[in-house]
Amino acid sequence: MAGSTLGKNFTITTWGESHGEALGVVIDGVPAGLELCEQDIQEFLDRRKPGSNPLSTPSKEDDTARILSGVFEGKTTGTPISVMVMNTSQKSADYSEIASYYRPGHADFTFDSKYGFRDYRGGGRSSGRETIGRVAAGAVASKILKELGISVEAYTSAIGPISADLSGYSRELVLSLPTAMPDKNANDLAMEYVAKTREQYDSVGGVMECRINGLLAGIGEPVFNKLDAALSGAVMSIGAVKAVEIGDGIAVSKSLGSENNDEFCIKEGKVSKKTNHSGGILGGISDGSEILVRAHVKPTPSIFKPQNTVNKDNEEISVQIKGRHDPIIVPRAVVVMESMCAITLLDLMMSNMSSTLEGIKRFYL
Amino acid sequence: MAGSTLGKNFTITTWGESHGEALGVVIDGVPAGLELCEQDIQEFLDRRKPGSNPLSTPSKEDDTARILSGVFEGKTTGTPISVMVMNTSQKSADYSEIASYYRPGHADFTFDSKYGFRDYRGGGRSSGRETIGRVAAGAVASKILKELGISVEAYTSAIGPISADLSGYSRELVLSLPTAMPDKNANDLAMEYVAKTREQYDSVGGVMECRINGLLAGIGEPVFNKLDAALSGAVMSIGAVKAVEIGDGIAVSKSLGSENNDEFCIKEGKVSKKTNHSGGILGGISDGSEILVRAHVKPTPSIFKPQNTVNKDNEEISVQIKGRHDPIIVPRAVVVMESMCAITLLDLMMSNMSSTLEGIKRFYL
Amino acid sequence: MAGSTLGKNFTITTWGESHGEALGVVIDGVPAGLELCEQDIQEFLDRRKPGSNPLSTPSKEDDTARILSGVFEGKTTGTPISVMVMNTSQKSADYSEIASYYRPGHADFTFDSKYGFRDYRGGGRSSGRETIGRVAAGAVASKILKELGISVEAYTSAIGPISADLSGYSRELVLSLPTAMPDKNANDLAMEYVAKTREQYDSVGGVMECRINGLLAGIGEPVFNKLDAALSGAVMSIGAVKAVEIGDGIAVSKSLGSENNDEFCIKEGKVSKKTNHSGGILGGISDGSEILVRAHVKPTPSIFKPQNTVNKDNEEISVQIKGRHDPIIVPRAVVVMESMCAITLLDLMMSNMSSTLEGIKRFYL
Amino acid sequence: MAGSTLGKNFTITTWGESHGEALGVVIDGVPAGLELCEQDIQEFLDRRKPGSNPLSTPSKEDDTARILSGVFEGKTTGTPISVMVMNTSQKSADYSEIASYYRPGHADFTFDSKYGFRDYRGGGRSSGRETIGRVAAGAVASKILKELGISVEAYTSAIGPISADLSGYSRELVLSLPTAMPDKNANDLAMEYVAKTREQYDSVGGVMECRINGLLAGIGEPVFNKLDAALSGAVMSIGAVKAVEIGDGIAVSKSLGSENNDEFCIKEGKVSKKTNHSGGILGGISDGSEILVRAHVKPTPSIFKPQNTVNKDNEEISVQIKGRHDPIIVPRAVVVMESMCAITLLDLMMSNMSSTLEGIKRFYL
Repeated sequence: MAGSTLGKNFTITTWGESHGEALGVVIDGVPAGLELCEQDIQEFLDRRKPGSNPLSTPSKEDDTARILSGVFEGKTTGTPISVMVMNTSQKSADYSEIASYYRPGHADFTFDSKYGFRDYRGGGRSSGRETIGRVAAGAVASKILKELGISVEAYTSAIGPISADLSGYSRELVLSLPTAMPDKNANDLAMEYVAKTREQYDSVGGVMECRINGLLAGIGEPVFNKLDAALSGAVMSIGAVKAVEIGDGIAVSKSLGSENNDEFCIKEGKVSKKTNHSGGILGGISDGSEILVRAHVKPTPSIFKPQNTVNKDNEEISVQIKGRHDPIIVPRAVVVMESMCAITLLDLMMSNMSSTLEGIKRFYL
Repeated sequence: MAGSTLGKNFTITTWGESHGEALGVVIDGVPAGLELCEQDIQEFLDRRKPGSNPLSTPSKEDDTARILSGVFEGKTTGTPISVMVMNTSQKSADYSEIASYYRPGHADFTFDSKYGFRDYRGGGRSSGRETIGRVAAGAVASKILKELGISVEAYTSAIGPISADLSGYSRELVLSLPTAMPDKNANDLAMEYVAKTREQYDSVGGVMECRINGLLAGIGEPVFNKLDAALSGAVMSIGAVKAVEIGDGIAVSKSLGSENNDEFCIKEGKVSKKTNHSGGILGGISDGSEILVRAHVKPTPSIFKPQNTVNKDNEEISVQIKGRHDPIIVPRAVVVMESMCAITLLDLMMSNMSSTLEGIKRFYL
Repeated sequence: MAGSTLGKNFTITTWGESHGEALGVVIDGVPAGLELCEQDIQEFLDRRKPGSNPLSTPSKEDDTARILSGVFEGKTTGTPISVMVMNTSQKSADYSEIASYYRPGHADFTFDSKYGFRDYRGGGRSSGRETIGRVAAGAVASKILKELGISVEAYTSAIGPISADLSGYSRELVLSLPTAMPDKNANDLAMEYVAKTREQYDSVGGVMECRINGLLAGIGEPVFNKLDAALSGAVMSIGAVKAVEIGDGIAVSKSLGSENNDEFCIKEGKVSKKTNHSGGILGGISDGSEILVRAHVKPTPSIFKPQNTVNKDNEEISVQIKGRHDPIIVPRAVVVMESMCAITLLDLMMSNMSSTLEGIKRFYL
Repeated sequence: MAGSTLGKNFTITTWGESHGEALGVVIDGVPAGLELCEQDIQEFLDRRKPGSNPLSTPSKEDDTARILSGVFEGKTTGTPISVMVMNTSQKSADYSEIASYYRPGHADFTFDSKYGFRDYRGGGRSSGRETIGRVAAGAVASKILKELGISVEAYTSAIGPISADLSGYSRELVLSLPTAMPDKNANDLAMEYVAKTREQYDSVGGVMECRINGLLAGIGEPVFNKLDAALSGAVMSIGAVKAVEIGDGIAVSKSLGSENNDEFCIKEGKVSKKTNHSGGILGGISDGSEILVRAHVKPTPSIFKPQNTVNKDNEEISVQIKGRHDPIIVPRAVVVMESMCAITLLDLMMSNMSSTLEGIKRFYL
């Protein structure tokens, strides 16, 4: 595929540009019989919607999801679900200047290099708005996983130098605080830090984490479709993510085998682990512990400080980007990470159904 | 696919277990007309062969590559190249004990959970020997990239707490030093560190990096097949890798936009960048700068220290692993990383050939 | 994929049900730089639109195509093109009865068997309206092929017992006659035949053919992605097609080797063939001659004669289908066949670009 | 993929040339826990082995299967099964002449057109020996289907003008008669017909059919992965097949709706059909009746009659092919067709496991 389709059994195909008519996704492989309505998807989309707090730009886009196919009498039919969000407040005029030069940190130059030209309005296909389709699909995947007793929860763990204390973790905090941190104190410090940076016409990066619970051992395929490999590829495909860690992540390189190995034990009659340095994955397959994925996100490339760059006539120029731009990407990207993890996991769970002859027989006989 | 096939246009399918009859790979999509002989592949395999230095276990396996198809009169024919390495020194008797319990840090438990039972001899399919197929395919991909003026070079950048100084980088150092570090001094310190840890029946982790040079801008597909996403997935699929970074990687989360953005400039009449925080990738597409991928590798899980674990009868036991095991994975994994990066890049370069109508016309008219 | 996506480099994903809100397609892998407007697509859709002549049911659907993404300033951008057609005259009330039983020759029973329930309105996803997405994508593929000097033309070659005489073939006849036959006389006879059958509350089948000209030798992959295998799979995926032939097709089984082999000769300095029993494909790869694909289409399963069947309570009943139904599928399916052939061929031409090292070098160096 | 891999969940990758060192297949996605030994595969390979009767050339190849991976202690492990057959009697000298010209009816010219050159020894990758990998995989797929109560049986239904009477069908006849016809009388007539044609230095074509029984309704994906579309593509990918029919096949184009529709009825309390014109598939999904696929096979292109052709210097020449060549392809291709049908069906059955939420819940909860 040319890159807009992901998955093998649960397959999503996203489309749309920042300032085109609409954006959307076709979700194929959704099992029949799931209760689904537009509100299920809207709840996810609202978490990435701009303008809801001081960390994100006010915008007139209300990002309303419409389900165009695949749902009948309130239930999924097993056929592809097409979800569309109209772009209601396109103002192409704002972007005429950007067309002439390459914004540092953006994909303007690389799109031009690849395709010969680009839709320069708001980043076109490389805009953060491309993730609308991912999030709509994530809402569906998450709902299915929930039916199987599996939770997928992402949150902001750090903004610039400020890290969240996870000891008081609650989903409610994540969903209610503007930073999507599960820590009110860190949230407040981060809000202050971001505000100060913004005043200096600059932007900040951050870290987000996703935890999967309720997953049995055995999910993931050895070799290339390892659960961690699939999750990493999926999370790294989110614009602005520059590093992905599983479990202890980068810390393993300084660890000793005796520290990093998780000893097995028996808990409530079941094989369990005393620690979880592995982040719930061994040999690319879930080990029954919590899955932990961490992603490092770069600062918003659109800053208001003057920057040097080049224009399409190969001249060096100085530019100052205008418009509305979030000073940080992370809080709105949290639901995108959550979505990508849910989509990836569900697809691997579907693949796993034919792993043993006994399982196939149990299903068909 | 069930996970043993990777790629779309350049496709590799690996097979084989540590102690089966043989291991190998089928490489499909190799362009016709490439000069190729077994020695090309052997050179890559020799870099991952055990027993060549104090960091790796002595072993009787000589890992000799045989090309069984796809090459005729010294040139590739365009049809699949099957490469096989016989397992010459299988000693299953050594592994009888391991069959009864789950080694900490290994995939024994997860394979049993997924498949109901496992080939317990030396890790079976989850063994490091599975990478033989990847490396054989990497040799072919690298040779093709070289014809296009592209180099893909990996090396060890850190072992435990010891980091290599890259200022004196040379490919020769990497290929000649037992640590695969491009720094003689760090190599010596690392050798000492590993030896000391080994004496304590323990193992160490490390970091490896891969750099791609000579690549033009425009390679990679937006959205899910981004160059960085594909590289991350491919590198994370190497057993023991727990984190992948692109360019500045984890550092971006503490960086400011004004620091992290690479300003464009004109060098020798061409669009270039003053810095390379992005690691050569913007919006998932190569930007013409050096590509930098970094991978963090956990310590060898097989350690000789006593460890607690459980057996197949769900009893908690204490075990002491025997046999020959490398105290560190990294030096032999370097060529695996290099291979995975070359395979991934070549596949995306093939996809890219149909990106513009002008390119298709130039090819066909 | 769950079956709604086709292709590797040129990829189409269709969605939508007969009586849902809308139907559409996401076309990924369209090369950048193609001039494309809605009218290009509309011309193809109009060929499958109902109600334009006595062979097809009058209907209020005007099947207007909207391009929602992937085109900017009149040219394709290389990113996915989303095309949508709204269902403007849904009358679900008409279909309430059908919900309770299984129509003979339709997919009602098999959908229920697979999914547990179905969207019973007008066949839902199994409706002929599903082909709207295919045809929209076919318009794009055909336009690209035209730029490469390749024509893909389908037509009706037989309706019931009446065969068209191809000696006076012209594209204009095909596009203007209601049967899509390239023969005015056969057209008139067929119209009469269909009218008479319709009076008897019955329906008729037919044959359609697709010819590809201007294609150079060398397209198609050996083994599973043979050009004929891919074309057959694509054409057989059109509802109601029950047989596919390449070149002489079924006649080869009664032929002798000396008759069936096409002798090579030199024409205008180039390798050519004296005959074309092979239908332009040898070993799954185009041989430079005209490609010929033939498809046999069953009679419309919706007939007004009383039929026996069963209802959802497993009772045997007699039913008489109401509503508007074409007495023959073929004329409107011709553009679907043409589209599927164009899509399949273009995808294989893209794959073919990396077949030789010389070709890759020519492209990149 | 470049065409040597087939399937999504049950995936086969074949490799090897007629006169290379070996041929084989990697079968990925085989469920763990299936009892499998080399003899299971050998039985299938023996059905396509040359030299066993007057219809096929005597040859020294004994086509012995070796399983190199994926089986442990007599059972499949869930990891890829690599099967290899060594080419034991390569005599490249025989083929030196063929290198210089293009044999009519063969893929010599098209391979040269695509790749710039070819492995000319015995057809290389386009040889019938390529099917060894398919048949080895078919043996595994068939064994799994048998465990699920599903039989897949192919046979020869016609040779040249002689058709088999199927009324006395038995598997034993098919497996014991040299024509693979289920009719002793037709077999004898066909043997005579082939012998006579051979004396005239010519070859004959034929028809083969495959019937699948024991399959429940609901298998196959709507739209592009229809069961009939997948079967057609798979069967058409067998070299020399030029037409594929499902159920009534080409006859449907002359049929009326009232004749072609299969009326539903209740048999033994279950929804059934009175007739089976559909060949067991409605809307691309199995309907619970017998699946019937028919394939038309061209005469062996290698004939001993003098033929006109061209050589690599673009000169018109007359040639007379030497060596040993079967006068008919069909009897040895029957097991290939059976294999392709089994592989395709199993893959779709695996995909089908995630079709409903209820099915997924039943599996995982």
